[in-house]
Amino acid sequence: MTQVHDVYPTRLTDTRSYTEAEWVERRDPVVYSPEPQKYQGPLSPEQVDFYDRNGYLFFDSFFSPDEVQPFLDNLKDYEQDANLKSRDQVIIEPYADEIRSIFGIHDLSDRFDRLTRDPRLLDIAGQLLDSDVYIHQSRINYKPGFTGTGFNWHSDFETWHSEDGMPRMRCFSLSILLTENNQFNGSLMLIPGSHRWFVPTHGRTPEENWKQSLKSQTLGVPGADRLHDMAGEGGLVSPTGPAGSVILFECNTLHASSNNLSPWPRSNLFFVYNSVENRLQAPYCGTRRRPEFVATRGSVKPLQRLNSKAAPKQATPLAV
Amino acid sequence: MTQVHDVYPTRLTDTRSYTEAEWVERRDPVVYSPEPQKYQGPLSPEQVDFYDRNGYLFFDSFFSPDEVQPFLDNLKDYEQDANLKSRDQVIIEPYADEIRSIFGIHDLSDRFDRLTRDPRLLDIAGQLLDSDVYIHQSRINYKPGFTGTGFNWHSDFETWHSEDGMPRMRCFSLSILLTENNQFNGSLMLIPGSHRWFVPTHGRTPEENWKQSLKSQTLGVPGADRLHDMAGEGGLVSPTGPAGSVILFECNTLHASSNNLSPWPRSNLFFVYNSVENRLQAPYCGTRRRPEFVATRGSVKPLQRLNSKAAPKQATPLAV
Repeated sequence: MTQVHDVYPTRLTDTRSYTEAEWVERRDPVVYSPEPQKYQGPLSPEQVDFYDRNGYLFFDSFFSPDEVQPFLDNLKDYEQDANLKSRDQVIIEPYADEIRSIFGIHDLSDRFDRLTRDPRLLDIAGQLLDSDVYIHQSRINYKPGFTGTGFNWHSDFETWHSEDGMPRMRCFSLSILLTENNQFNGSLMLIPGSHRWFVPTHGRTPEENWKQSLKSQTLGVPGADRLHDMAGEGGLVSPTGPAGSVILFECNTLHASSNNLSPWPRSNLFFVYNSVENRLQAPYCGTRRRPEFVATRGSVKPLQRLNSKAAPKQATPLAV
Repeated sequence: MTQVHDVYPTRLTDTRSYTEAEWVERRDPVVYSPEPQKYQGPLSPEQVDFYDRNGYLFFDSFFSPDEVQPFLDNLKDYEQDANLKSRDQVIIEPYADEIRSIFGIHDLSDRFDRLTRDPRLLDIAGQLLDSDVYIHQSRINYKPGFTGTGFNWHSDFETWHSEDGMPRMRCFSLSILLTENNQFNGSLMLIPGSHRWFVPTHGRTPEENWKQSLKSQTLGVPGADRLHDMAGEGGLVSPTGPAGSVILFECNTLHASSNNLSPWPRSNLFFVYNSVENRLQAPYCGTRRRPEFVATRGSVKPLQRLNSKAAPKQATPLAV
């Protein structure tokens, strides 16, 4: 059942409407807080404006190595857990019997759940989205050495809108680096400024598309011409840094990553913060709802700040 | 017919001999010229010693943009040539109907043939290999934007020895950048120092393996443990630079490259210079000979210096 008022039409099957709909200008704010609150919070005014223009922020060594090591240790435990590997929420690499992603990680583990509620992160979410937030999706991407495959160009919002019924762009992802991300191990690439446009894609979404798309995405990938234009305008960036660094990117920022041909795993944790004002509707592409571990519907209670003895820390300086 | 005295056994099918043969130390010089000639020529003493230790050299902007533009123009013409695309020497991408490589390019075109005989290149070959040389193989790798796929880790010598019967390591490749090579478009990665070891690989080579291996290499790829050790010791490097830059790498240096997820093609020209003292024998892996466009046997006359009005140029400073 396709909904009537869709401001971001995509997965188009009609050539005419596709042509008309190319490069739709974004119809939502990037930063929701009005002035002067917009510039009050852990992010500096320069960081807020950078995010507004470019659709991402990079925080070198946001967490200390000691803070992220236990999460990395958990990953290794999960790799040995045969029972876990058989679950739907664990995605296996397309060409190797290795874990590609584990979804719903904050539901699996109290440690990960607590990290989602770290005041340092929630305060950034409040500053950018001007509302309470909940975790729309959480996952670990393993990307093992030699066999880890990449992710094709896409806007997360394009999928979350069409396949999950996320109405508007009021959401961002945090990628927490659990291992060093360097130029050799398949680091995230982003197109700065691409979040300001919505690029509709072609093709009807089949039922249970996620079983394929989480391994290797083909639907929801913008055309080569659009990507060429976008990258021609904004260039490409690939933030790299040690374990504990954080990449924050807007839900509509185009991104991709290459295979990992290095010997070093590139394991990152992803938390997707969505505004409680932006709860999911029926999928716009007319398919059945995706599983809860990919798109939270059941428990959208606002995240409560974790009581931390550590004083809230100022976000580290922006390195771009 | 497997030859008797093989100092570099590979494509092993016997587990015991594989274990014994791991990490064979190189039995050949890297730089053949004896002192003091070793240090006399276009390469500075620092460059010669760097190559000896690391197995590669990078020359930023070795050629001017004007010098390489006509070669790039030729590539575009070849892409439009339907007759050419049907030939065996033209390799098509595994997942897209685009040219991956054209082999035997110096036989196809006088322009490319003349470039192989450029005195600036031949003088380097003479300084390193201390003999006349011929072109063992030439090719263009197109690596188009979005669809260009990478190359798995390998030593060229491992293949040229086993499948082409190249007896010893007295050979190097020149990669001439026809487009900018940057961190996003699938640039060459090398393991410095790996040329000092020979890593045997596993598996029997089938007849006409090249029809598969030139699209996507699986045989002749060292084990993950070996690569991990090699990269742990030598690290990885990925020289990048503008069109006209040159990467020179020893025939046994382990290298690989990622997919090209950027919009920008990464098109490089490869000339493989082999010493005339190192002509091909029967393939050591016992298969039939590969085609002439992959491995020159018929015309191994020493390359003659092109008469150039331009004065021989000193190699540009090393940037590593």
